[in-house]
Amino acid sequence: MWYETALTKTLNIKLPIIQAPMAGGATTPELVGSVSNCGGLGSLGAGYMDAEAMRNSIHKIRELTNNPFAVNLFIPEPVDIQERKVRTMTETLQSFYDELGIEQPPLPDVYGPQFEQQMEVIIEEKIPVFSFTFGTLENKWIDRLKANRTKMIGTATTVKEAKQLEGLNVDAIVAQGSEAGGHRGAFAGSAEDSMIGTMALVPQIVDTVQIPVIAAGGIMEGRGLLASLSLGAGAVQMGTAFLPTIESGAHPLYKSALIEATEEDTIITTMFSGKAARGLKNEFIGRLKSVAVDEVPDYPVQNALTQPLRKEAAKQGRAEWMSMWAGQGLRLTEVVGAKQVMDRIMDEANSALRRLQN
Amino acid sequence: MWYETALTKTLNIKLPIIQAPMAGGATTPELVGSVSNCGGLGSLGAGYMDAEAMRNSIHKIRELTNNPFAVNLFIPEPVDIQERKVRTMTETLQSFYDELGIEQPPLPDVYGPQFEQQMEVIIEEKIPVFSFTFGTLENKWIDRLKANRTKMIGTATTVKEAKQLEGLNVDAIVAQGSEAGGHRGAFAGSAEDSMIGTMALVPQIVDTVQIPVIAAGGIMEGRGLLASLSLGAGAVQMGTAFLPTIESGAHPLYKSALIEATEEDTIITTMFSGKAARGLKNEFIGRLKSVAVDEVPDYPVQNALTQPLRKEAAKQGRAEWMSMWAGQGLRLTEVVGAKQVMDRIMDEANSALRRLQN
Repeated sequence: MWYETALTKTLNIKLPIIQAPMAGGATTPELVGSVSNCGGLGSLGAGYMDAEAMRNSIHKIRELTNNPFAVNLFIPEPVDIQERKVRTMTETLQSFYDELGIEQPPLPDVYGPQFEQQMEVIIEEKIPVFSFTFGTLENKWIDRLKANRTKMIGTATTVKEAKQLEGLNVDAIVAQGSEAGGHRGAFAGSAEDSMIGTMALVPQIVDTVQIPVIAAGGIMEGRGLLASLSLGAGAVQMGTAFLPTIESGAHPLYKSALIEATEEDTIITTMFSGKAARGLKNEFIGRLKSVAVDEVPDYPVQNALTQPLRKEAAKQGRAEWMSMWAGQGLRLTEVVGAKQVMDRIMDEANSALRRLQN
Repeated sequence: MWYETALTKTLNIKLPIIQAPMAGGATTPELVGSVSNCGGLGSLGAGYMDAEAMRNSIHKIRELTNNPFAVNLFIPEPVDIQERKVRTMTETLQSFYDELGIEQPPLPDVYGPQFEQQMEVIIEEKIPVFSFTFGTLENKWIDRLKANRTKMIGTATTVKEAKQLEGLNVDAIVAQGSEAGGHRGAFAGSAEDSMIGTMALVPQIVDTVQIPVIAAGGIMEGRGLLASLSLGAGAVQMGTAFLPTIESGAHPLYKSALIEATEEDTIITTMFSGKAARGLKNEFIGRLKSVAVDEVPDYPVQNALTQPLRKEAAKQGRAEWMSMWAGQGLRLTEVVGAKQVMDRIMDEANSALRRLQN
């Protein structure tokens, strides 16, 4: 069948559809399990999870499905606490904390979960597929993952990054186009220089590397799947399409905002995390617009500064201060189950192929 | 055949490939004629041409082909001469003029050719297809074009713009994705908000309008053509792919620069014309990087200020100060004839379709 590719064979999945690993709670075990049960590859976005939470989620996923699934981690970057920027940003953010009626906590001693501990879970659990973002992977991990027969997927935003990843002997590369929601995966160049649209990026990476390429960015349904395979991709990775599903852990207000949004409603911002990411425009981004980009502390410091604020805003139902990542493929119409999303993708792709064959 | 669409029938062309109308000299009658002779739709970018030059080019095209072709014009915008910005920019540009050894001319009394006169040529010559960019078209012209059976194509960068164009009763809409080279066609919103990738934009426009949609932006070869038709487009419009052809009027240094460039080498800039456009990064853009975007005079004033400089730079072979528009689909390999480009597109698209059918 047209949807069987070298990559679906490698990953041992039926359909060339990867549900994107979205850190921040959207990728519940229920969502991951549901997508994998449909024959796609569900992915747990574990970037912000500690070892115990990861282990629990992986166990739950395994209760829900016998099919392959992926876990995704962020490759850590050196933390640079830029004192002056932090001071200014802390002052800027104080008004939000005041309005929420909570204290602004001091910066943590440790930024997020420790990568080494997260990786030990990946190894111990012998997970089927490991995907990673924001960089390359050290050889020691690659050797241990290969010994486990865990398939590896890296993330590239340019041909240069794709070549670097291929050099690590990963099994596939996500080509993240500029339409994609959430954090930009750029690691070898600036995020700005790496904003290449999916239509342009995928064939250029396909022509350069020998391993399978996964198209990501702006792909929302079956037509996008067929288009991506036409471009030479072996699968697609879709995030936004799965955010407003019943199984998704996204906040109800976030799901509603996605359903309301159009293609003009997203923006690339560094204000939430210190790293460029695409999300729905809201009041938080608007109020910080006067802050110069080079005055924002780097990731993960800015992320730590705004995280308690966003968490409390979510609790209080204030979508205007939440980070609501989204890609440019919008105009979604309703919250449905993940199986329905998967079924529709395949129906639409089959129709699109029939149209081409007529 | 898969490449026959409602749009190819409407335009009376054999292949769903439109060579983009690139103003500035690239779209010679030879290029337009060659593409149309191959069964595609060659387009003359006449935005900067006066009535006489248009008429001469159209006559030449007609000598070269009996097949349909298009002529494209820019919809004029009110000219706003912002005295203070013009003064500052004139000072900034003086160093370039000094280095070139020519006088910086004063601003012209009239900005470019007059639209009414250009349109009279379009009407008189009863051209087969008229395409337009930067806005909508007045009813008086639409009525006269319809009376001539001239097919009309508008350009949209968002769903909102596509709806406006459909309301004019045009025959098709170019969906210009963010990958596209040259000027952004945005007219109902800011250029910044209208940077939607082709993969995301095309299906959203297809789902909203009833008329055929033409995919543009980052499409370089047959895989992109097949992908665009998968997304629901009735044809593609390709510019960058035709710039380094033998028939193209692009400067030899511009052609070489395109052959050398990668997907990371383009940038959106307003520095050449006052309107956002995607082109190859070069020293001119770099030197003006310190100028704030809102200090640049609007189009067409900035265009008039830099045009003599760019013309002289081209004459002196200084590619670093030329405007070299390009999309993100790069990594081209050689200068070949337009027929070879067309043949390759169809060969690749047929191969890609066979791969899907296996």
